[in-house]
Amino acid sequence: MSDSNDASSGLSRRKLIGAAGLGALAAGAGAGGGYAVGRQDEPSIAGVPDPDAMPIPFEGVHQAGIVTPAQDRLYFVALDLTTEERGDLISLLEDWTAAARQMTQGNDVGEFGAVSGSPYAPPEDTGEALGLPPSGLTITVGFGRGMFVDAEGKARFGLDGKLPDRLKELPAFSGDELDPALCDGDLAIQACANDPQVAVHAVRNLVRIAFGRASVRYSQMGFGRTSSTSTAQVTARNLFGFKDGTANIKVEDEKDVERFVWVHEDDGPDWLVGGSYLVSRKINMRIEIWDREPLEGQENIIGRTKGSGGPRSGGDEFEKLDFTQKDDRGAPVIDMKSHVRLAHPDFNKGAKLLRRGYNFVDGSDGLGQLSAGLFFLAYQRDPETQFVQIQRSLAGLQKDLLNEYIVHVGSGLFACPPGVGRKGFWGEALFA
Amino acid sequence: MSDSNDASSGLSRRKLIGAAGLGALAAGAGAGGGYAVGRQDEPSIAGVPDPDAMPIPFEGVHQAGIVTPAQDRLYFVALDLTTEERGDLISLLEDWTAAARQMTQGNDVGEFGAVSGSPYAPPEDTGEALGLPPSGLTITVGFGRGMFVDAEGKARFGLDGKLPDRLKELPAFSGDELDPALCDGDLAIQACANDPQVAVHAVRNLVRIAFGRASVRYSQMGFGRTSSTSTAQVTARNLFGFKDGTANIKVEDEKDVERFVWVHEDDGPDWLVGGSYLVSRKINMRIEIWDREPLEGQENIIGRTKGSGGPRSGGDEFEKLDFTQKDDRGAPVIDMKSHVRLAHPDFNKGAKLLRRGYNFVDGSDGLGQLSAGLFFLAYQRDPETQFVQIQRSLAGLQKDLLNEYIVHVGSGLFACPPGVGRKGFWGEALFA
Repeated sequence: MSDSNDASSGLSRRKLIGAAGLGALAAGAGAGGGYAVGRQDEPSIAGVPDPDAMPIPFEGVHQAGIVTPAQDRLYFVALDLTTEERGDLISLLEDWTAAARQMTQGNDVGEFGAVSGSPYAPPEDTGEALGLPPSGLTITVGFGRGMFVDAEGKARFGLDGKLPDRLKELPAFSGDELDPALCDGDLAIQACANDPQVAVHAVRNLVRIAFGRASVRYSQMGFGRTSSTSTAQVTARNLFGFKDGTANIKVEDEKDVERFVWVHEDDGPDWLVGGSYLVSRKINMRIEIWDREPLEGQENIIGRTKGSGGPRSGGDEFEKLDFTQKDDRGAPVIDMKSHVRLAHPDFNKGAKLLRRGYNFVDGSDGLGQLSAGLFFLAYQRDPETQFVQIQRSLAGLQKDLLNEYIVHVGSGLFACPPGVGRKGFWGEALFA
Repeated sequence: MSDSNDASSGLSRRKLIGAAGLGALAAGAGAGGGYAVGRQDEPSIAGVPDPDAMPIPFEGVHQAGIVTPAQDRLYFVALDLTTEERGDLISLLEDWTAAARQMTQGNDVGEFGAVSGSPYAPPEDTGEALGLPPSGLTITVGFGRGMFVDAEGKARFGLDGKLPDRLKELPAFSGDELDPALCDGDLAIQACANDPQVAVHAVRNLVRIAFGRASVRYSQMGFGRTSSTSTAQVTARNLFGFKDGTANIKVEDEKDVERFVWVHEDDGPDWLVGGSYLVSRKINMRIEIWDREPLEGQENIIGRTKGSGGPRSGGDEFEKLDFTQKDDRGAPVIDMKSHVRLAHPDFNKGAKLLRRGYNFVDGSDGLGQLSAGLFFLAYQRDPETQFVQIQRSLAGLQKDLLNEYIVHVGSGLFACPPGVGRKGFWGEALFA
């Protein structure tokens, strides 16, 4: 499988689309070609490309899925390595890279894909994305601390000296109720797409490829991106009904991206330059309790209005927050313990994050309440001075007013290697 | 709340959209108006209506969400009544109807909605759908046996003599591994939409409205509709990678819809005429085992090819199945125990169903395997001669070959009342 390291290889899923679907997939074929408006089952509006259906380039200096404008759906998975062989880890990363090249461009996994192989062998591709366009799929991998060292701190896979200093375990935060089964992992895969079936297909096939080398630790579906990562995107709302991520780093702000997202040469280690650190946090929301809070209480807790998302101190969504403004009684209009204030760069030594979180609903708990919340994902250059700094400001019942309504139950920290070119594989420099 | 029984009432969510979103929501405003192509955060392609964003009429002889072309996303919830007062049940159904009228047309719940009410009261609407278009939302309710009679068979809510004969408990099927926490319920709500956030918002607000009268028993998210209910839709694929529902009843086949979906006058009871029975089954799929089955084995189990979905006996997807065709060795080309044969009307006294199921992924189980499968939903005129007839043909390891790879863990049967007009409420005739 590691032979097919070529983005143009593989069977196009669209070749298999029947007559009913052809109308909707008009015009061009290759990356950037003409995925027409509408789902495959809808009448085509000829010639109008559907941005949600298009492929996103896999190759690049950085991995896709970080500054890529956030897609609508997420499937995230953390895995543990079940091998101690260096060769197995290398071949796994090679195989994953090859499969990701294919799937992100809308192709089946493998040489023969879902239905063109031997009838006497299990298909190389599981097939549920047949006929679906690339749908903006990105696949982003991260390496957990556990890939580098075992519980005793002994190097694994011959990766002595390769563990980044900054890939420390996250500290305990006040109020955390972490479930170890929802934390950490040797490897993480973030699959984002505009069609959940495409994201699920990607993760499922990567997990299948890992058989005998790595197995799933936990996984999470998400929908309705909660942060905009591009100025072209409207800020989406979280399940508290508020716009989330108004002040997020935007891809168009190249200076912030350079300063806060990518690992620099002088940060080290060498193999991670151009990469980034991913912090994941599964945050359960106490939805039913929140819904009983008066509107003004909700807005005070957040520090913004619910309708426009503008600051409590006035103005529209993107107006600067005025923390000095006082009400008639001399109290700050933006509460000292509001979420927006405590998380603000002004009170965190300038720290910013590139957030890329998703809402989730896992169903209902045994008490009839929603099992729902925010699967928080944030990319950064240095976890200690960014996520940890900000989370220390927020965590604890004496701090962020929001803490009465949320609880962190899962946590992970992963070093995401830089992108790959036409021939390489994820993390190749680790093994050089 | 039951005063606002008027589809035109309520605040439009779109009024709150800021400048960034306005471009995408061009032209008209009312139901059937101009929801432009693209999500709100994408550049508008002026004047081209986006079918995925449009509202679906709430009023009608039948409830929406049954023969409505299947939307992409599902949020399903079953509730138990926590009151024994007839007046509470009536007011709940009135309140739900009023809220559904508003939400399906893209409006906030209540008189003042998410952000226009008193700052000192909890908002009437939870707000996470602010700025989102109606997205094809339909809300469909069903009544479980438990709403009519208690465990001893005694009538509840003064509904003596109203229990439909056909609303029997489903029989036990061979191989079932039902979890009581995922079965039954006094009431069911099926919310379907092209945006999961819109479906989640609808269920959450209906559950909130029910507080003190009904509470959640279980709920289920679904994606990637597995059946096409319209000839205009391409048949989607289930998580086994096969097209699912090729032979489903299509809304365009009016004779089948009339014969197999709607309760007729001579079926009774009177209050249910124009309604339908909904069978729900949560079916876990043994994904990892399936993925190890050779292609020919998979196709033999299903009885169709994986690529086109055509019958093993030849032809394209919609070719008639030829159960008489034999191979060189005299064996039937479509296996006698294949899924498609055992489920076929020819072997089930002509029985057909209107299926409307969705794929689900709940995450991973403790063993690193996908918790995933099919949330099967089927509408019918008579459960005994339709779902039960077909399921009896399929159930059991000696029958459908597919049973090695699936297990039914949840089950429900609900009587769905007919639709409502401009003034009525769901199930009103029950209380006349």
